[in-house]
Amino acid sequence: MNMALKLGVIGTGAIGQDHIRRCSKTLVGSQVVAVTDINLEQAAKVVRELDISAEVYADGHALIAAPDVEAVLVCSWGPSHEEYVLAAIAAGKPVFCEKPLAVTAEGCRHIVEAEIASGRRLVQVGFMRPYDQGYRALKAVIDSGRIGEPLMLHCAHRNPRVGENYKTDMAITDTLIHELNVLRWLLNDDYVSVQVVFPRKTSKALAHMKDPQIVMLETARGTRIDVEVFVNCQYGYDIQCEVVGESGTARLPEPSQVQLRSEAKLSNEILMDWKDRFIAAYDVELQDFIDGVKAGTIFGPSAWDGYAAAVSADACILAQNSGAIVPVTLAMRPAFYG
Amino acid sequence: MNMALKLGVIGTGAIGQDHIRRCSKTLVGSQVVAVTDINLEQAAKVVRELDISAEVYADGHALIAAPDVEAVLVCSWGPSHEEYVLAAIAAGKPVFCEKPLAVTAEGCRHIVEAEIASGRRLVQVGFMRPYDQGYRALKAVIDSGRIGEPLMLHCAHRNPRVGENYKTDMAITDTLIHELNVLRWLLNDDYVSVQVVFPRKTSKALAHMKDPQIVMLETARGTRIDVEVFVNCQYGYDIQCEVVGESGTARLPEPSQVQLRSEAKLSNEILMDWKDRFIAAYDVELQDFIDGVKAGTIFGPSAWDGYAAAVSADACILAQNSGAIVPVTLAMRPAFYG
Amino acid sequence: MNMALKLGVIGTGAIGQDHIRRCSKTLVGSQVVAVTDINLEQAAKVVRELDISAEVYADGHALIAAPDVEAVLVCSWGPSHEEYVLAAIAAGKPVFCEKPLAVTAEGCRHIVEAEIASGRRLVQVGFMRPYDQGYRALKAVIDSGRIGEPLMLHCAHRNPRVGENYKTDMAITDTLIHELNVLRWLLNDDYVSVQVVFPRKTSKALAHMKDPQIVMLETARGTRIDVEVFVNCQYGYDIQCEVVGESGTARLPEPSQVQLRSEAKLSNEILMDWKDRFIAAYDVELQDFIDGVKAGTIFGPSAWDGYAAAVSADACILAQNSGAIVPVTLAMRPAFYG
Amino acid sequence: MNMALKLGVIGTGAIGQDHIRRCSKTLVGSQVVAVTDINLEQAAKVVRELDISAEVYADGHALIAAPDVEAVLVCSWGPSHEEYVLAAIAAGKPVFCEKPLAVTAEGCRHIVEAEIASGRRLVQVGFMRPYDQGYRALKAVIDSGRIGEPLMLHCAHRNPRVGENYKTDMAITDTLIHELNVLRWLLNDDYVSVQVVFPRKTSKALAHMKDPQIVMLETARGTRIDVEVFVNCQYGYDIQCEVVGESGTARLPEPSQVQLRSEAKLSNEILMDWKDRFIAAYDVELQDFIDGVKAGTIFGPSAWDGYAAAVSADACILAQNSGAIVPVTLAMRPAFYG
Repeated sequence: MNMALKLGVIGTGAIGQDHIRRCSKTLVGSQVVAVTDINLEQAAKVVRELDISAEVYADGHALIAAPDVEAVLVCSWGPSHEEYVLAAIAAGKPVFCEKPLAVTAEGCRHIVEAEIASGRRLVQVGFMRPYDQGYRALKAVIDSGRIGEPLMLHCAHRNPRVGENYKTDMAITDTLIHELNVLRWLLNDDYVSVQVVFPRKTSKALAHMKDPQIVMLETARGTRIDVEVFVNCQYGYDIQCEVVGESGTARLPEPSQVQLRSEAKLSNEILMDWKDRFIAAYDVELQDFIDGVKAGTIFGPSAWDGYAAAVSADACILAQNSGAIVPVTLAMRPAFYG
Repeated sequence: MNMALKLGVIGTGAIGQDHIRRCSKTLVGSQVVAVTDINLEQAAKVVRELDISAEVYADGHALIAAPDVEAVLVCSWGPSHEEYVLAAIAAGKPVFCEKPLAVTAEGCRHIVEAEIASGRRLVQVGFMRPYDQGYRALKAVIDSGRIGEPLMLHCAHRNPRVGENYKTDMAITDTLIHELNVLRWLLNDDYVSVQVVFPRKTSKALAHMKDPQIVMLETARGTRIDVEVFVNCQYGYDIQCEVVGESGTARLPEPSQVQLRSEAKLSNEILMDWKDRFIAAYDVELQDFIDGVKAGTIFGPSAWDGYAAAVSADACILAQNSGAIVPVTLAMRPAFYG
Repeated sequence: MNMALKLGVIGTGAIGQDHIRRCSKTLVGSQVVAVTDINLEQAAKVVRELDISAEVYADGHALIAAPDVEAVLVCSWGPSHEEYVLAAIAAGKPVFCEKPLAVTAEGCRHIVEAEIASGRRLVQVGFMRPYDQGYRALKAVIDSGRIGEPLMLHCAHRNPRVGENYKTDMAITDTLIHELNVLRWLLNDDYVSVQVVFPRKTSKALAHMKDPQIVMLETARGTRIDVEVFVNCQYGYDIQCEVVGESGTARLPEPSQVQLRSEAKLSNEILMDWKDRFIAAYDVELQDFIDGVKAGTIFGPSAWDGYAAAVSADACILAQNSGAIVPVTLAMRPAFYG
Repeated sequence: MNMALKLGVIGTGAIGQDHIRRCSKTLVGSQVVAVTDINLEQAAKVVRELDISAEVYADGHALIAAPDVEAVLVCSWGPSHEEYVLAAIAAGKPVFCEKPLAVTAEGCRHIVEAEIASGRRLVQVGFMRPYDQGYRALKAVIDSGRIGEPLMLHCAHRNPRVGENYKTDMAITDTLIHELNVLRWLLNDDYVSVQVVFPRKTSKALAHMKDPQIVMLETARGTRIDVEVFVNCQYGYDIQCEVVGESGTARLPEPSQVQLRSEAKLSNEILMDWKDRFIAAYDVELQDFIDGVKAGTIFGPSAWDGYAAAVSADACILAQNSGAIVPVTLAMRPAFYG
């Protein structure tokens, strides 16, 4: 019989609350027994409102140390991730960390080293796209050989609009970061260089930022990837990915929609909110973590994936600023990560 | 070298003018040398405005008799068709007759008999759908055997709206008549029975008429056809045809359109005007008549097809009124029509 | 905090095992504590193989009587359903019954009466299509008024092929039964008449059966439905549903698939196995039952829906045999069912 | 009344024959009265086989000089184009020249100067894509403002395979040349720089060439264009063009095809032969030239467009070789070309 995995959640903001709700009401085999937040009153309020029996701890370290906490979810603000993940590793407790794993590649490197030193995989990073049914179907097609070896990827990441506090470099760290992770996974390959070009700026973007951008990545096997990042595209939240192989192409499925004929148009709705697009993937992702912890085998996005994303993102930002082709220099992949 | 075929056009209303323009400016190898109309001033005006050198004749019979008229286009009002077509046959001149060939099946029968008596094909009826590229592609798929023997057809004929003078039986004589012709051709089969049912009436139709209707036809080979006729569907002019065969289905292509992503919709435009849908087919149809006359072999929709359409339409109207399954009883197909 | 709902499962054949696995491993808040089967050894084997701690009872009545069984799943063969559902109602225990609710409309009627007498909703019938995301999206479009009042439905239910033991009437009881249920729900309307026509038989069907069939239903509000049932269509498991409203049409989404360009084709895969098509709906359906029982409010397909399906199916079989338009005569809907 | 335009055709190879057939049998208002070829016997044979009454001239200059030749079609091999176009201009006769206008940008420049000196537009270059119905529909959408100002274009030009004599630079001069022309027209803009990257080479390409390639163009208004050129893609002849505007995207229509459901696939055919894709555009293109000559106003692709294509192609080839971002430096656009 299944015993519920006892979870402690650090950070009870929006994503923390979502994960608590998920682990308590939707997923199988987990239970949130401990929470904490920089704002303890808020943490207590979440426990009350979600009607769960979880203790509120003074801080993340106390939570990690709690004897009944079997695994940890880190949902606090980015700069605190490294510290808590390292603490969980030190305590020998599996840890699911929302992205970014750390705010610097250096920090990710520390976590990688600590995890390797611990002797077993304890860390999963919250990249959810590899859990999306569409990307999985696309990967299955690639891996089946039906389109031959992939040679090029044409991608787009479009948001209807972004707010005042979104800066040009966030197109990399908050937006492209998902492609940086999922495309490595899709191709089972690493990036070796990146170039960024800025098309004519849309009149719909706020004055302080450049939008759209085109990021061109090259992989170790020579596959060329272009990703249009356009965060004020107005019309929808739209994620496109076309893989061009030696003998055919494959395209990420559009979200399934009712086809309408009305008002002189044959149309399908396009989503406006990113949450609707990947909502199911969050469930699958966390369920996979829970099942993995219980089985003693975490297979989700690893600390190494978190490190690779950080190094790639750093190179992209350099490329944004220089206009040049910038190398992406990863350390040698440790055997530990397979 | 090509010599232009000299045409006489009876009737210079909307469709007559279109055909004159077509034969003068768009098609190859024809020339309009004679016109007439019940309103002779209007006929003269058309000659002037289209800047063609055609003589205006006092009536259709004078036009048919004119020595330089090599072939005749009948575009006058329906009740006059039979008379002019018979006159052209009597004069041994090829004749293209806009639908209906005659306003009664009896009238069509007379034309068939006269044509057979003349010993060669002289008559083409103005059914243009077999000249539509989409229907041709669909027929090519059926004939290729790729979907096996056709067992069922699911069709729809939808118009945005119709005016005051459109009556319930015109859903047969003016609208379904196109399917009655093109589906026989598509299947190379004849109808043996028909039933009409009336769904709940749309609130968008005028009080005096029933709309939509569903017409269910059975063919000699047992293929079942349902045609939704919906002439106040609001959203577009939309012609659908799905053929279900023993091992697959094939669908009439949608008109080619730019695919848009805008305003939270992935959309293609739907046409609103039937003229846009089949405009190219009119050119191909008349060119085929002209080429056929010059080659001495008319292959387009025949007087027999006109007769079959008339008999089928009569049965449909009976079925509208009785609610019963009504037999469609064609005379035996003369060997003359192959 | 959630306490797991303790379930007893009658029948450990294919669907029974699926539901046991579902309730034990996939869904939240349930636990299978009791099972039985006409073959007790097989029941014991299932318990062992799925590694659940459930007691094996001598028969369904013993299982229903067991004090720790809080709700019952009836997955035994059809003729036994009525007896067990009535027993569960008598015991005041909620019961989820795989279709059919009973093998006769009369039997369904008994259950309806027993449930009403019990004073609260205890029965959910295993119709899963209303839990399919596509049908839900379609219903949302209809209910939104975006296509106006529905006037016609064009549907198809196609299977690649069926075996030796599939008879012509099973096209109704095993195949169309899903449409009979889901279309009533989609339209929030009842059937008043039905007619069945048999197109030319496919050469791919075994000698003893007629295939395809077209079932034409009329609803109380006058909506006309045509359903093509074609169980040897070869090419795929394909469920189509187009709703034609007063101002537009809406179509059931195709299952989401990777779009391929290869071998001179732009293509999406079509499923071959019905289980793949509705697999997710089974989870949602049972989760809804579990949540409903715990909340004291069962909202899923009711005994009345089971009765309506049985009455409609009876009329369809009459219509298969007579070729006539057969009335569908439901008893008056009890206020109990809202 | 229309008098036929009397045409002389220089070069009776494949494209020359097609154009002779077109002007004699398909188009309205033209007549081929003179032909010549480097192989005079072959020219005579074409006249015979197409059954036209055209005189065979000793060479292009004699043909241009012939008094009854009113306009000239240059279909000879590329290196001879400049000479004949200049001769036609000198003779004051309108000339339609197959691409390339001249084999060097310098040669194109001479033609531009000669045409300007002649005082009126005499030259049309055989770029047919602006006459394709799909590109026209796409341009209409852009010009309508429905997707806002164009910011990016994502394009692909894919051929199933190429032969031994196709070299890497022909991806520019024979393949991309169509995009170089049509995208300028689509955007009403000029290129200012180009960069070419080479993805991992497909194993299906012959040893001596690089394939695929990605060409990245920047326009004067800052629009960024990426064109994938992949001439051994195996699966089809596939032309893609997506325009990303400030508020939406628009995509070149796919050729209209029957939609099939068969063998577990929902599919549309993809063309394998480029001639099928743009066949109709050739007719429209030449008809436009004929009509333009007769009306005294040639509006098709101009000598300036030919010059711009040549300059752009030169820059692309430099970019292929250098890997660098190469400026595209056009001379100032003469007022003569509007």
